Amino acid sequence: MATRTHRTQQERSEQTREALLDATIECLVSLGYARTTVQEICARAGVSRGAQQHHFTTKAELMTAALQHLFGRLITQVTASAKELPPGPERISHGIDLLWEAYSGTLSTAAVELWVAARTDAELRESLRPVDRALGHATLSLYREAAGDLPEAEVETLLLLSVNLVRGLALDAMMGGDEARRVRLLEEWKATVLERYLAFTG
Amino acid sequence: MATRTHRTQQERSEQTREALLDATIECLVSLGYARTTVQEICARAGVSRGAQQHHFTTKAELMTAALQHLFGRLITQVTASAKELPPGPERISHGIDLLWEAYSGTLSTAAVELWVAARTDAELRESLRPVDRALGHATLSLYREAAGDLPEAEVETLLLLSVNLVRGLALDAMMGGDEARRVRLLEEWKATVLERYLAFTG
Repeated sequence: MATRTHRTQQERSEQTREALLDATIECLVSLGYARTTVQEICARAGVSRGAQQHHFTTKAELMTAALQHLFGRLITQVTASAKELPPGPERISHGIDLLWEAYSGTLSTAAVELWVAARTDAELRESLRPVDRALGHATLSLYREAAGDLPEAEVETLLLLSVNLVRGLALDAMMGGDEARRVRLLEEWKATVLERYLAFTG
Repeated sequence: MATRTHRTQQERSEQTREALLDATIECLVSLGYARTTVQEICARAGVSRGAQQHHFTTKAELMTAALQHLFGRLITQVTASAKELPPGPERISHGIDLLWEAYSGTLSTAAVELWVAARTDAELRESLRPVDRALGHATLSLYREAAGDLPEAEVETLLLLSVNLVRGLALDAMMGGDEARRVRLLEEWKATVLERYLAFTG
């Protein structure tokens, strides 16, 4: 039985856009920001330069949309996992694992490439900033909701400490640091947070 | 009275080397790794390509030597400051400040540029790895010495957590994150470490 797919103009346009964004992330991860060119992205996506320019005018615009795209997928995934967190103190340990998974994968690698490039590229920096801020806010409200009994200020502090620690560890992983050591440090951090949690909730 | 400076061949060679390494760091900080070329480094150092090639054969070699150079200067400075740390629990807070100063300045910016570039550049990665490891060991033994009463394993864990947190915060600073928030998180972290210290030492 033959299957026929009817694609509307809008669906085709959406697919082109997605192919470009996926290829952008793929290039960032395998080549790094500096060696990623719009030509290479188009080649990997199987999209013509004309079609690409219809969607994104500049490299910075393409990069920002790719980060947003990746982040959107990630937040959906983390929101789903957060709903299944066990109740009580155990959720702390699982919550930190979730954060580490989010930051140690493709998102983190692509984001670090972009952040570092943005330091010396004003156009990219301006373009990334709002996405970055939105990412921070979405993560925070997700964790606030998941944290249950802890006071808001305390949740924010522990989350931000966790995010920065995990970012440092992601950098360590990128540099080829010892994995067993990272696992041990994450466990130590969970124990520290758990202690604070128990001190607050009794 | 006229002052005459006699420079031996060796002194001149040492000065050329230093000028090249300083220019390399300057380029990494102001241009980023990707836009740093050996030509630009030579121009800023006022050194001919011939003289440069006498000292360093490849870009990776130049980068590694520059990181080593910067790190040498930093470890001298931190060793001196560590000797003046106050006794007792107060040294914890000062020790974390020292770490933050070390990681939030030029070293960190240059190092992050190199680490990120090394992820997608095998030659640079191989060249940086031993320097990186030496840097880690020197910092650890410095802190072990400064930590006084704490057991060794505990010092190592707290130092590594601090280093990774500070690295994450350095990335946050590079991305233009809120400075007041970073200061607050560092204070929170100091309080956490102090609590562990007091639990151990009574």
